[in-house]
Amino acid sequence: MCAISQLPFDHLWPDSAEIRDHRLVIAGCDIGRLAAQHGTPLTVFDEATIVNAIAAYKNGLGAYSAERSIHYAAKALLNTAIAQLMLREGIGIDVVSLNELALVRHAGVDLARVHFHGNATPSAELAQAMAWGVGCLIIDNLSQLTSVIALSHRLQQPQAVMLRVAPDVVAGGHAHIQTGHKASKFGMPPDAIGSAIDQLNAAPGLQLIGLHAHIGSQIRDSEPLVAMVDCLLDIAHSEHDRVGWQIQELCVGGGLAVPTSATEQPVSIAAYCDRLVSKVAEACAQRRLTLPRLSIEPGRSLVARAGVAVYTVTGSKPRADAPDFLHVDGGMGDNIRPSLYNTSYEALRVDSADVPAVSNYAVAGRYCESADVLIKSVALPPTRPGDLLAVPAAGAYTLSMASNYNGIGRPAVLLLRNGVAHLIQRRETAIDLALPGQLHSICQIGFSPCRYCPSQPSIV
Amino acid sequence: MCAISQLPFDHLWPDSAEIRDHRLVIAGCDIGRLAAQHGTPLTVFDEATIVNAIAAYKNGLGAYSAERSIHYAAKALLNTAIAQLMLREGIGIDVVSLNELALVRHAGVDLARVHFHGNATPSAELAQAMAWGVGCLIIDNLSQLTSVIALSHRLQQPQAVMLRVAPDVVAGGHAHIQTGHKASKFGMPPDAIGSAIDQLNAAPGLQLIGLHAHIGSQIRDSEPLVAMVDCLLDIAHSEHDRVGWQIQELCVGGGLAVPTSATEQPVSIAAYCDRLVSKVAEACAQRRLTLPRLSIEPGRSLVARAGVAVYTVTGSKPRADAPDFLHVDGGMGDNIRPSLYNTSYEALRVDSADVPAVSNYAVAGRYCESADVLIKSVALPPTRPGDLLAVPAAGAYTLSMASNYNGIGRPAVLLLRNGVAHLIQRRETAIDLALPGQLHSICQIGFSPCRYCPSQPSIV
Repeated sequence: MCAISQLPFDHLWPDSAEIRDHRLVIAGCDIGRLAAQHGTPLTVFDEATIVNAIAAYKNGLGAYSAERSIHYAAKALLNTAIAQLMLREGIGIDVVSLNELALVRHAGVDLARVHFHGNATPSAELAQAMAWGVGCLIIDNLSQLTSVIALSHRLQQPQAVMLRVAPDVVAGGHAHIQTGHKASKFGMPPDAIGSAIDQLNAAPGLQLIGLHAHIGSQIRDSEPLVAMVDCLLDIAHSEHDRVGWQIQELCVGGGLAVPTSATEQPVSIAAYCDRLVSKVAEACAQRRLTLPRLSIEPGRSLVARAGVAVYTVTGSKPRADAPDFLHVDGGMGDNIRPSLYNTSYEALRVDSADVPAVSNYAVAGRYCESADVLIKSVALPPTRPGDLLAVPAAGAYTLSMASNYNGIGRPAVLLLRNGVAHLIQRRETAIDLALPGQLHSICQIGFSPCRYCPSQPSIV
Repeated sequence: MCAISQLPFDHLWPDSAEIRDHRLVIAGCDIGRLAAQHGTPLTVFDEATIVNAIAAYKNGLGAYSAERSIHYAAKALLNTAIAQLMLREGIGIDVVSLNELALVRHAGVDLARVHFHGNATPSAELAQAMAWGVGCLIIDNLSQLTSVIALSHRLQQPQAVMLRVAPDVVAGGHAHIQTGHKASKFGMPPDAIGSAIDQLNAAPGLQLIGLHAHIGSQIRDSEPLVAMVDCLLDIAHSEHDRVGWQIQELCVGGGLAVPTSATEQPVSIAAYCDRLVSKVAEACAQRRLTLPRLSIEPGRSLVARAGVAVYTVTGSKPRADAPDFLHVDGGMGDNIRPSLYNTSYEALRVDSADVPAVSNYAVAGRYCESADVLIKSVALPPTRPGDLLAVPAAGAYTLSMASNYNGIGRPAVLLLRNGVAHLIQRRETAIDLALPGQLHSICQIGFSPCRYCPSQPSIV
């Protein structure tokens, strides 16, 4: 019999997380043992949490009385296994570059179920995406529309598109992640949509199926969502009256908040979907519009809470007027959010998960940058070098924004399911870091022969 | 005969930059032609600017009447060619991880000329660095000292070390890059040094050669430098009196500012060195200390101005109350400084470099993040999709902090010398991005067979 305890800041952990005999266990896997086996920093994902979040969106949208679709926003976290998990769960994917599209294509995703976004996508990438038959291009601005029309003439094949609207709605957390206001780099103002529709009507290969907006990230409040739906459906209504255009798809983006710190309240996927479904139904009825397909693009809310980052404490530093530092073996290279967005995280001792906290520590990363402090203050039991810390809610916009700053390889990534840990990204090594051209290039610079390119002679 | 014009914001460009027939030319290379050949985003480095900056430091330290050494801070920019350039110019290197050490070792750098830093370096990395014979370990804190002493007992070989002092001097730009204040994660307070010296005296394998401090980045003012030298030499003086310890090396770190925007004034390497040399001589005389070896660790000031980032404009977006957006094919993935540190940059039209600017534009990157605006406002001639923009002073802490966010590969990098462009890092491709475990992993996750690992059977 093992002792089961309650997890502190319970709402931040994966669905399958628990404490057994004082140790953190996720999906039946002992996290300390995985860290010993795979090294740290390590990020583990609970498959059940992702699957449950998808199910919550599916259930929540179930009340909508027309078609609906869910597209995972791959920018939150993407690798082949994650793409295949979304495929298995029957949802589409939203990508923002040809490389992301290539990865999901290789993973076996039907590209007809992919939304392709981007405010500044090079024309060559748009052309390849169209040639591969991507499901829908979301056109961000009028100059991109001009490019897409030209490509469509050249490619001579049908292509579904949506227009991205900047509805001038301010929502979300940090100013950096507000995307729907009129000064944003994303989207077209409502008064530009008429001209875009006229241009599309003159481009027979392109089929305008709908309107898209995404008003920001870390949204907790339904008012901006309501205002955005009104804005999009006002456009649909007036374009219907003006040129008979019928909206087939309404894509409201993503952006639902996920808390990362103990004091932030959880956000309900069910409540979000309820409000969205009722608002869209009501707003369409008011405007006598046929219900369009309702599509959403959740990213963070599918993977953030599923992911837990695990670090080893490598040292400490006492301070007089502030919490003592614990130094850990990761930091801004694997999670830039504390320095970029001032995001607050929590931490737990992996092998003493239910031992009462007695003092506050600051958790500093290993990167040579003062900005690299992962957590400014967190209460922990006495903690020493060699101890492991687990940071919850670290699954979204962390690894996808990871760098090799200071020459440090990106972490290994495990997907946990039914007591088994699957390695879905191995840790980067010194050789991985050198391979993108670095070692291969030295023969070209001509300082010394390169042992990786024996056929290419040194020029000095 | 070609027409030569004056470069705008002249102090931001590489030494060899010029305008010929309205086009930007660096080291005799036509930048527009290089962009056509290698694609964009592209970063080009002027070798002469790096060589000249090293020479300026060498000349400036020449007045110091004892030994001196220069260690390039590799975290600013590192690849094999850059390491070999520093080797050829006869300076040492400062690294902060075993991977950086492995890269400079592979490049042929004598590890005796390497400083190894880090506040949280895992013990295994310290052990390997010591086994490879790294020149000097800079010990950041007392718990790292404990690790190094234990490793020294195990390895049974001599190792030179310095102690990093946090002199409680506030200097530099953004709060994120101030490293010398007492609440910083870096270094030991002056009153901890005595205890560290006592511990080192009891560890016969370790030889304490000196003291180190680094008080921040983007420093323009000599006062903090002066205060730091006084602090370090006060410690040296009192430890000499207390236990007879003789300081052999004084390492003052780096941190000299490099402007990135037109309104920032240039900073003189010569003036910095003058002030440093006279201050150290004077402070040693006051305390009757023998002049120690004087070592410095410049990073940014060797490579920042040498590097120019080149982007293609992919589209535009008019705005009513703010400068119109130009969308470019790079952004926060290759240069996170505008979003992380609010850094301001300038831009120039590559093929119309001397055409008078007529309007202000904001330059937005291609990444799906509102934070991804490279330049909030810059004056340019009328600019359209397909035009090239060059961003000067983009050589330091840009590529070294680059990510693959949005699945976008890091830029190709050229080193320009005497009219020849050497490819020193090739552009990352979709395959590079997939290789760190991603494609290899799919057989392990068990969704489908992986064609990259035919020997490993699918488990589903």
